[in-house]
Amino acid sequence: MGNGDYQYPHPVAIPPSKPLSKSLQSSIKETFFPDDPFRQFKNQPLSRKLVLGLQYLIPILEWAPKYTFDFFKSDVIAGITIASLAVPQGISYASLANVPPIYGLYSSFVPPLVYAMLGSSRDLAVGTVAVGSLLIASMLDKEVNHQHNPKLYIQLVLTATFFAGVFQASLGFLRLGFIVDFLSHSTIVGFMSGAATVVCLQQLKGILGLIHFTRETDLVSVVRSVFSQTHQWRWESGALGCCFLFYLLLTRYFSKKRPIFFWINAMAPLTSVILGSIIAFLTHAENHGIQVIGHLEKGLNPLSVSELAFGSPYLSTAIKTGIITGIIGLAEGVAVGRSFAIFKNYHIDGNKEMIAFGMMNIAGSCTSCYLTAGPFSRTAVNFNAGCKTAVSNIVMATAVMITLLFLTPLFYYTPLVVLSSIIISAMLGLIDYEAAIHLWKIDKFDFTVCMGAYLGVIFGSVEIGLVIAVTLSLLRVLLFVARPRTSVLGNIPKYSMVYRSTDQYPIANNVPGVLILQIDAPIYFANANYLRERISRRIYEEEDRIKSSVETSLHYVILDLSAVGSIDTSGISMLEEIKKIADRKELELLLANPRSEVIKKLDKSKFIENIGQERIYLTVREAVAACNFMLHTCKPNPADVEAVPENNV
Amino acid sequence: MGNGDYQYPHPVAIPPSKPLSKSLQSSIKETFFPDDPFRQFKNQPLSRKLVLGLQYLIPILEWAPKYTFDFFKSDVIAGITIASLAVPQGISYASLANVPPIYGLYSSFVPPLVYAMLGSSRDLAVGTVAVGSLLIASMLDKEVNHQHNPKLYIQLVLTATFFAGVFQASLGFLRLGFIVDFLSHSTIVGFMSGAATVVCLQQLKGILGLIHFTRETDLVSVVRSVFSQTHQWRWESGALGCCFLFYLLLTRYFSKKRPIFFWINAMAPLTSVILGSIIAFLTHAENHGIQVIGHLEKGLNPLSVSELAFGSPYLSTAIKTGIITGIIGLAEGVAVGRSFAIFKNYHIDGNKEMIAFGMMNIAGSCTSCYLTAGPFSRTAVNFNAGCKTAVSNIVMATAVMITLLFLTPLFYYTPLVVLSSIIISAMLGLIDYEAAIHLWKIDKFDFTVCMGAYLGVIFGSVEIGLVIAVTLSLLRVLLFVARPRTSVLGNIPKYSMVYRSTDQYPIANNVPGVLILQIDAPIYFANANYLRERISRRIYEEEDRIKSSVETSLHYVILDLSAVGSIDTSGISMLEEIKKIADRKELELLLANPRSEVIKKLDKSKFIENIGQERIYLTVREAVAACNFMLHTCKPNPADVEAVPENNV
Repeated sequence: MGNGDYQYPHPVAIPPSKPLSKSLQSSIKETFFPDDPFRQFKNQPLSRKLVLGLQYLIPILEWAPKYTFDFFKSDVIAGITIASLAVPQGISYASLANVPPIYGLYSSFVPPLVYAMLGSSRDLAVGTVAVGSLLIASMLDKEVNHQHNPKLYIQLVLTATFFAGVFQASLGFLRLGFIVDFLSHSTIVGFMSGAATVVCLQQLKGILGLIHFTRETDLVSVVRSVFSQTHQWRWESGALGCCFLFYLLLTRYFSKKRPIFFWINAMAPLTSVILGSIIAFLTHAENHGIQVIGHLEKGLNPLSVSELAFGSPYLSTAIKTGIITGIIGLAEGVAVGRSFAIFKNYHIDGNKEMIAFGMMNIAGSCTSCYLTAGPFSRTAVNFNAGCKTAVSNIVMATAVMITLLFLTPLFYYTPLVVLSSIIISAMLGLIDYEAAIHLWKIDKFDFTVCMGAYLGVIFGSVEIGLVIAVTLSLLRVLLFVARPRTSVLGNIPKYSMVYRSTDQYPIANNVPGVLILQIDAPIYFANANYLRERISRRIYEEEDRIKSSVETSLHYVILDLSAVGSIDTSGISMLEEIKKIADRKELELLLANPRSEVIKKLDKSKFIENIGQERIYLTVREAVAACNFMLHTCKPNPADVEAVPENNV
Repeated sequence: MGNGDYQYPHPVAIPPSKPLSKSLQSSIKETFFPDDPFRQFKNQPLSRKLVLGLQYLIPILEWAPKYTFDFFKSDVIAGITIASLAVPQGISYASLANVPPIYGLYSSFVPPLVYAMLGSSRDLAVGTVAVGSLLIASMLDKEVNHQHNPKLYIQLVLTATFFAGVFQASLGFLRLGFIVDFLSHSTIVGFMSGAATVVCLQQLKGILGLIHFTRETDLVSVVRSVFSQTHQWRWESGALGCCFLFYLLLTRYFSKKRPIFFWINAMAPLTSVILGSIIAFLTHAENHGIQVIGHLEKGLNPLSVSELAFGSPYLSTAIKTGIITGIIGLAEGVAVGRSFAIFKNYHIDGNKEMIAFGMMNIAGSCTSCYLTAGPFSRTAVNFNAGCKTAVSNIVMATAVMITLLFLTPLFYYTPLVVLSSIIISAMLGLIDYEAAIHLWKIDKFDFTVCMGAYLGVIFGSVEIGLVIAVTLSLLRVLLFVARPRTSVLGNIPKYSMVYRSTDQYPIANNVPGVLILQIDAPIYFANANYLRERISRRIYEEEDRIKSSVETSLHYVILDLSAVGSIDTSGISMLEEIKKIADRKELELLLANPRSEVIKKLDKSKFIENIGQERIYLTVREAVAACNFMLHTCKPNPADVEAVPENNV
């Protein structure tokens, strides 16, 4: 590329304007179907399309025919392992949700079967989740006390579960899965750590053997409640709890050190329950201040369709609880499923996952199950135990079924304090301080969001924490758009065609007589006023700088629009005003590299006519070359000529 | 620039990380002080700083010393002209706000004086605004009926005005003026047109001489109310109203045709009032079904500090009304002031304007004035009459003062129907269908926002329209960030160093064996999942395309990050996942032109170590050159060599 080719610059292409229906169609496709799910249906005969459609809706039809006996062996081992975790965890988390322990077992039977048919993850282990259980209790117990009115409370829990399912499934059907993306990683880290802290605090009730306890979840209320009744503390309960907690944490420590020890860790909750029950049975612990589970009903899940309280005056609370717990469940479940899928290199369809989650909660709410999702701890155990497909969930469900049918009397003597220890040891793993440190190192704002969620949850309530974190996250996006960067570009020596920000590349040289500005964001109503102010200020500053030096005075302003992805009518008005400001200062305004969205609108709004087609260049380099050419031919000031060295390519 | 210089590429600069306090300081400065208001204070002696500070806070101190007699002559003419408009408009709009007519005159006395001292616009004429008056009535009348409890209603109006002022001033002091920017131009167009339509509909009461009228503002209720009482219509009132409306519209038509006729238009409301009063006086119109204003008190604004109802149970409604009317007043006022300032080439400081508006409403609420702002119609008349400074507001205030002291009895016979005609003729000018057509042509989404606001206002309520429009506008910003474009770049023939989107430039050629993707937005939590899906799909699609052709198979993926202004931790995780996906497909991932914000975080998060410093290039061209170099030396496949023509610069 030699001298002078700026005289024949390549024109900036203005894409032909598409008819409205087409552009609408393509933008709807990009927004709602970015993964192009119908690609596989193209050019297929009708029968094949039907099969593919069924397989798309019910993933088990896709993988079941390829299922082998080897897979089955692995899945059975993994399934039994997670069942040994599911039974004690189910009973423990039920107490977090203030529902009878048996509901925790019910919830590990039907939903895993539904998920196995509809879910697209091969590793996800379905079950109740601690944070979801806590949320349900904290949101519903305010309205209906579970002790005063247990029947209505359970009806509300099931109704909330139903609406969580409906909400999750509709997000999936309407392909609005991206709403979940607005819960950023930092929000989830902060929120989960906060909820885990709150759950641990709640366990003080079980560990200390307290009978009365605050219904609030915030740190201050809990600490006040615990220390206001020190005379009620039971040392037997505390000692037993600490022993089991120590045992559980020890097994986790070892399993982290040596991955082959993970079995010990996976089995630890079950062994704790067995050991605890034996001790309680032998010592008649219930007479020494250690509360036990007591009688559990035998039998499979009773139907509960008639329990759904659609006519209840608390319906709106149930809907709100359903939506919030539903979205939290999705956020955790989808993220967990996706992480393991990336690890094993297969693909998970977020919208399909949402439908699967929704269906499993709708089915669950009709069969006495409360909110289920994909807990991280259980999924990790499933993965470590070598699961191959969702059949491990079926095996787990079968094991739980056997427990429900025959083994429930064995839990009579299980001490509550052991369940508290199991919960605490699971929750301590969720308090992810390392992730918070990582956020602090890389991105202070993400750290702020994370701490906002954490502190909001532990000092306010679970909902307050969530609202704080989502608001902060959105604020960041809006602030990015409202306050875009404008950088001055300079020429990088030895690369005559490359112009880069002088902030980032201090060696970049200003081009005499030319101010090159790069705008870093779409030009929208939210930043149009700011950009006008900022660009004017850049021009003032450049003029001030030049006045105090011996450089060529300012003649040209080039706006590099490479990073401007979009523009709206307010943005176009802003450019028109900048043109007026430039005219008044006798500066010439040039544009470099407007993108297709932008050039289309500039064309329609006649801004191109206004500024002149010949003022729009494909690259900054061409615009600069044109400026230099004009500076030297039209304004033959000898000082100018001298001041322009090798930039005049 | 010859061959082979890609072997010594310029490294991508990683700016040194600044200490937290410094980067916080600079981002606060960019966010809240983009106009650098303290620039003029630099390097000045203390006494000068004090003077500048006072002038900054009270702009009249800046321009008063330079005030000349010539300016004064112009300002007096302009001031008298706007006073002739202010008196009838003030009385008319007061009826819109359901307050006694005299409050409209009070409101044109004190606030203009305050604004003249504190405001930075030279053209803005201060007064009550139709939309603000309507909003106050529609929000407060729901709580306290102005007919049943007029005293409490007025107290609430004054309290709302007080809070509007406090809100406006605090936005200015806290430099949060950019909140107003979130009301985009299209929102304002739709909202104003809708409100004007609603106001016109409300005037049917006056025009038809109705006594009972609905308290709702939506189209359906108003039409039902009007046609349910056809027997109450008074033809005398209707005829008189239509005559005056015709006269007012005719003068406007002429003034538009010939700008020198603008006097006729400016004086038309006053002449209508005079003519209408004379007719009513001569015909004893009040006996023929034409309602007249009746008795108006004489005297200046009474103090009303004691009327501010801070202890009222309706305080929260007053605060809400204040905030909404305050922000609407600001949005219109600041936009009007700014338009005329750009026209006359002077600068308006948005935050200072907000403080001025706030102060004038706080002062107003203590002196029996209700919400004032900068109405467009009055400001345009002020400008056309040749005002030079805010002294025209002082002249107007003086004229209104004289009216209040001596002339109020003259308005006894002014028919209400004339006031309705004045309001309708002013409102018809606000229904900006041309702007809506312009929006439709250029930006369909802006048009949707505009129509959302319009339809929301006329079929729902003023607040509903506003909420719809703001939500749609924000949704657009969020959608832009959530669904950024990814474009495939190709080489533009004859310009071996220029790579542009193949969508925009169909002549751009793919580089064999290399997929170049450009990402068009900051990579945030809100789009990280989408981008991962979309980039994977781009890779799949490219592989599919290559399979069906004879091209070199895909070896390299270059991500052009030129348009990525920022990244957060979710974004970095996304890049790490893309790297894993690429590794698994045995593709090599290269980055081109990461910006300073991005490269800093990639460095901190060790992603650079992960991908390799040598995989990050200053330009796409260098990255492509490196790919070609590697393709030919490391994988010397003769087919590849043939397939790469002149791209190997």
